[in-house]
Amino acid sequence: MHVFLPDGKQLDLPEHATALDAAKAIGPRLAQDALAATANGVLTDLVTPLPEGAEISLITKKNPGQAQSVFRHSLAHAMSQAVGEYYERKGHPKEAVKRGVGPSIENGFYQDFDLPEPLKEEDLPEIEAIMREIIGRNLEITRADVGKAAALEQFSYDPYKVELISELPEGEPITFYTQGDYVDLCRGPHFPNTGKLPAAFKLTSTSGAYWRGSEKNPILQRVYGVAFATQKELDEYLERLEEAKKRDHRKLGRELELFTIDPLVGKGLPLWLPNGTVLREELTRFLREQQFQRGYQGVITPNIGNLELYKTSGHYQNYSDSNFSPITVDDEQYMLKPMNCPHHVRIYAAKPRSYRDLPVRLAEFGTVYRYEQSGELNGLTRVRGFTQDDAHIFCRPDQLKKEFLDVLDLTVLVLRTFGMNDVRFRVGTRDPEGDKYVGSDENWNAAEDQIIQAVGEVGLPYSIEPGDAAFYGPKLDFVVRDVIGREWQLGTIQVDYNLPERFDINYTGEDGQEHRPVMIHRAPFGSLERFVGILIEHYGGDFPLWLAPRQIAIIPIADRHNTYAEELRAELHAAGLRAEVDDSSNRMNAKVRQAELSKIPVMLIVGDKEQEERAVSVRERTPEGHKERKGVGFGDLKAELLERYQTRA
Amino acid sequence: MHVFLPDGKQLDLPEHATALDAAKAIGPRLAQDALAATANGVLTDLVTPLPEGAEISLITKKNPGQAQSVFRHSLAHAMSQAVGEYYERKGHPKEAVKRGVGPSIENGFYQDFDLPEPLKEEDLPEIEAIMREIIGRNLEITRADVGKAAALEQFSYDPYKVELISELPEGEPITFYTQGDYVDLCRGPHFPNTGKLPAAFKLTSTSGAYWRGSEKNPILQRVYGVAFATQKELDEYLERLEEAKKRDHRKLGRELELFTIDPLVGKGLPLWLPNGTVLREELTRFLREQQFQRGYQGVITPNIGNLELYKTSGHYQNYSDSNFSPITVDDEQYMLKPMNCPHHVRIYAAKPRSYRDLPVRLAEFGTVYRYEQSGELNGLTRVRGFTQDDAHIFCRPDQLKKEFLDVLDLTVLVLRTFGMNDVRFRVGTRDPEGDKYVGSDENWNAAEDQIIQAVGEVGLPYSIEPGDAAFYGPKLDFVVRDVIGREWQLGTIQVDYNLPERFDINYTGEDGQEHRPVMIHRAPFGSLERFVGILIEHYGGDFPLWLAPRQIAIIPIADRHNTYAEELRAELHAAGLRAEVDDSSNRMNAKVRQAELSKIPVMLIVGDKEQEERAVSVRERTPEGHKERKGVGFGDLKAELLERYQTRA
Repeated sequence: MHVFLPDGKQLDLPEHATALDAAKAIGPRLAQDALAATANGVLTDLVTPLPEGAEISLITKKNPGQAQSVFRHSLAHAMSQAVGEYYERKGHPKEAVKRGVGPSIENGFYQDFDLPEPLKEEDLPEIEAIMREIIGRNLEITRADVGKAAALEQFSYDPYKVELISELPEGEPITFYTQGDYVDLCRGPHFPNTGKLPAAFKLTSTSGAYWRGSEKNPILQRVYGVAFATQKELDEYLERLEEAKKRDHRKLGRELELFTIDPLVGKGLPLWLPNGTVLREELTRFLREQQFQRGYQGVITPNIGNLELYKTSGHYQNYSDSNFSPITVDDEQYMLKPMNCPHHVRIYAAKPRSYRDLPVRLAEFGTVYRYEQSGELNGLTRVRGFTQDDAHIFCRPDQLKKEFLDVLDLTVLVLRTFGMNDVRFRVGTRDPEGDKYVGSDENWNAAEDQIIQAVGEVGLPYSIEPGDAAFYGPKLDFVVRDVIGREWQLGTIQVDYNLPERFDINYTGEDGQEHRPVMIHRAPFGSLERFVGILIEHYGGDFPLWLAPRQIAIIPIADRHNTYAEELRAELHAAGLRAEVDDSSNRMNAKVRQAELSKIPVMLIVGDKEQEERAVSVRERTPEGHKERKGVGFGDLKAELLERYQTRA
Repeated sequence: MHVFLPDGKQLDLPEHATALDAAKAIGPRLAQDALAATANGVLTDLVTPLPEGAEISLITKKNPGQAQSVFRHSLAHAMSQAVGEYYERKGHPKEAVKRGVGPSIENGFYQDFDLPEPLKEEDLPEIEAIMREIIGRNLEITRADVGKAAALEQFSYDPYKVELISELPEGEPITFYTQGDYVDLCRGPHFPNTGKLPAAFKLTSTSGAYWRGSEKNPILQRVYGVAFATQKELDEYLERLEEAKKRDHRKLGRELELFTIDPLVGKGLPLWLPNGTVLREELTRFLREQQFQRGYQGVITPNIGNLELYKTSGHYQNYSDSNFSPITVDDEQYMLKPMNCPHHVRIYAAKPRSYRDLPVRLAEFGTVYRYEQSGELNGLTRVRGFTQDDAHIFCRPDQLKKEFLDVLDLTVLVLRTFGMNDVRFRVGTRDPEGDKYVGSDENWNAAEDQIIQAVGEVGLPYSIEPGDAAFYGPKLDFVVRDVIGREWQLGTIQVDYNLPERFDINYTGEDGQEHRPVMIHRAPFGSLERFVGILIEHYGGDFPLWLAPRQIAIIPIADRHNTYAEELRAELHAAGLRAEVDDSSNRMNAKVRQAELSKIPVMLIVGDKEQEERAVSVRERTPEGHKERKGVGFGDLKAELLERYQTRA
């Protein structure tokens, strides 16, 4: 057989040669240093036969990061072996530990176990220590093909392995990987030797996980680890994790009293507390203003609709997993609305439209309901009811680019307003081979061209992803990176040829004939719940003045300043600012600390001198700590704060 | 026997004497003039035996208006007789006309018929003419008691009468009223003679009505008439009716494109079109500002809730007729929320509260769903889904009066803002005999006192209605009279001792003990749907500037002024005003007419002179017609309009 090297050179090798054979053929030093390889761009290990004619590339200790998923997978095996030894040392027979799956995942790996007694978080350092012993043992990791009968024999004590092996097709070889006395059913790939595994790993947590993900099966114990090629990457990752924990919107949501989820009201149905409601209403006010300026028209539609509506739109048939069960009303059936689009289409259809009336841009902060499994629910970011900042633009095909550009412009403005400057776009176009698409080729070609041109004009990074279009039209996703480096997929802008067809909506063209409009679906925030969840984490609860639910804390130094403090509060409040007085019996420093904890951005401290001069001392939270100004005239300060609030500075 | 006259004088009469006997005893002239009477304040006629010892008062032709419901009832009989004669003249046997009920109602009367062939609206004048003949015949109206067997015999041809008679208790006399050859089963009271009935009546319409109001029964034909003591009253009423038709919110809602109801979306579920949405959002913005100033806090809660929540609150058990059918989610059941209160109570309960934190005022524009029979649905005023401007105030018992006063103050402010100055209040207190009330007597006494004091301080008319309290607390309704004299019951302010009990909510008092807060439910608009429906009729679609969905029409005199017009529009729009340019090819007068039809309050007409001077000619709609100003500087005008918009002048 032969393979090709990255420089195009052909390498002749014996039949069933592996990447290690290839490395040896190139030179002993490379064979020594090799950790893994890619064959035709796919990661493989040194002990798996290469495909005939493959382009191969070897990964060595110079660039172990290229084989992250391989060493993470091997670390899962090392952990699995270590857990076995841990229980043997505690006197359990080797067969007492049974195993589910153990893959590499983003940032690390996990392994599922059925254990004679559960592992606790505090046991993890000991497991980790045994893993380091196993690495120290420098065990060779070998691969072997075995027959089904032998495989079943080998794992007869482990019902999970038996179940997996039984399902494998007859006649095909089953691969085992072995290191020392640890053997596992596994397709690989793996590092060649435990001694070559990076030391930059850490076991982080355990949780329960159903065998094969089904609630009908027993719960196994899952142990998670994180692993990187270098200690520096691991440290940075753990720091980000720590920071993310501090910023967890569920934790901050509770501490800052933004929202709560009450099982008596319902799972996945957040109750917006007063502070969270302020935040949310600032967002809607901001977007509503922008939309007014851009010629959108508001509409309001009910939260339920006749099933016939969703049958016409296709939502009933196509999204049955996320639909709530129907509600019977007299001889009709209704459903909680999963999307606002059918309602908006019916509003478009409520009167005749001419080419002169288009584009029609209908916007609604529309609350929709979609079923999610209870295990998937998470704070504000995964819920069963949420409000979309939804709009549907009905336009002529020749208006598509201009409308698309305006939506992009609005989207970028929205994100920048929240300091989200690291944005990239993904344009989903047709699969050139596909034929499942609704709408004429002519329209599709024009639409894809117009969207790609529009995205190009925005001047932000983008990629084109052929095959990522929906069957009903091309789309654009946008992804932002937050201050701690995490990426969030926010909204989608979607062109739609399908709903206009299904609802048979029209406009009268300049030619007097009926034509079909194109629809654009767009939601810059996506959902208010999810966006606020992300904003909480993005700001770590330290919202800018205009968004802060509690904007101004007025702190009287002594009780005798309470009246003056209240007078200032009333004046700020009348101007529309959110101000409060801390007239508790605490001392000033305690009051300041309390306001800090509540993340109130502006504190006004008032004592004798301030009261005499109708002034305040200002203490403001900043990303670096805080900024103080003494003896600021109250009138000037109020004007300054109001200006900052109104301009969302 | 004896009775008492209004001056306290006692009148001795023979046994079973009637009001006519009493009149005769006083004098022949009075007996001649008498039309009806009251006995102990209840209307009666001249032929019904008076109760022993009653205080009686005679109604004569000097004040026939006091017996409105009596002559309306007699006119129903006259119509019933006339319809019988109408069909006899057409050759039908007398027995072919069968009859349901025929009462007096507000402003008139109706009678239900089962007819050999249906009556058309155009037949009504002929029926009316026969009624006037019957009046001209001067027939005496007499009363007779008959036995059940005889009654059944008399009406054997009429299954409706047979059904009614069969259900009457055995042994008690059944009364018939007779005029000429027309006899009807009736409890009365009636005028003594058809000749004394007022001529000021008119048959207005017919409709279908189920026998005894049940969909399972046959549909009868109902004929409506209106009647007053004087022609002047009738003319005024018909004029108001005509005016009400012009103002019908369903008609104006369609013409002004405010809302639509689409059967494919659902019955009783209005879709708010862009113009209606503007109106609704102006209302919410106005109230939200007021609520911010008054220390309310916004919250947002889902449109569904776990059934357990509504079982705890009691809504599930107590309002089952208006609940939608449950939605099954995994192993739980959910329901469309019929009220926001349980959600708000759970928000109150989400953290510990101290006496210092109270009152807590939680406000939400909360959309709720309540089942209504499809026959009851009506435009925006009777719907299945609506948004309440809801708030719940949780306060200490000693804070009730102050909170109640603030709610009243807000309510009156809201109504006055819409020019609804004719307001009256009804305070519902306990039935002194009743014992179904939740909460201590001490609390009830204090609450009733505080509410009555508070209402007294507002200085508007009010009445106290003992027995009108809910079982869970005293309440206050407010009723407004619109410009065409119709009364609308708007919202209710309700004190509630029950939900705090059912949800076991508390606050820690100054004494360190747990205490139960009182709740106030309030909604000044009631529901946005209903209030907007009423506002449309109240203004007849001629909204003041701040509410008008389309505020400013800019009318270029010729095409060459279009650019200038568009420049003005953009500037007004950027300032937040709703302006549009009519750049159609119509002539100026047609454009003005079009803007008039669309009820746009301000028109700016621009030609050469205006363009040259950066000015406009202003034409404004006023209740009297319109007002014109020429050559107004555009900058001044913009400032003036903005000021009027912002101050809601």
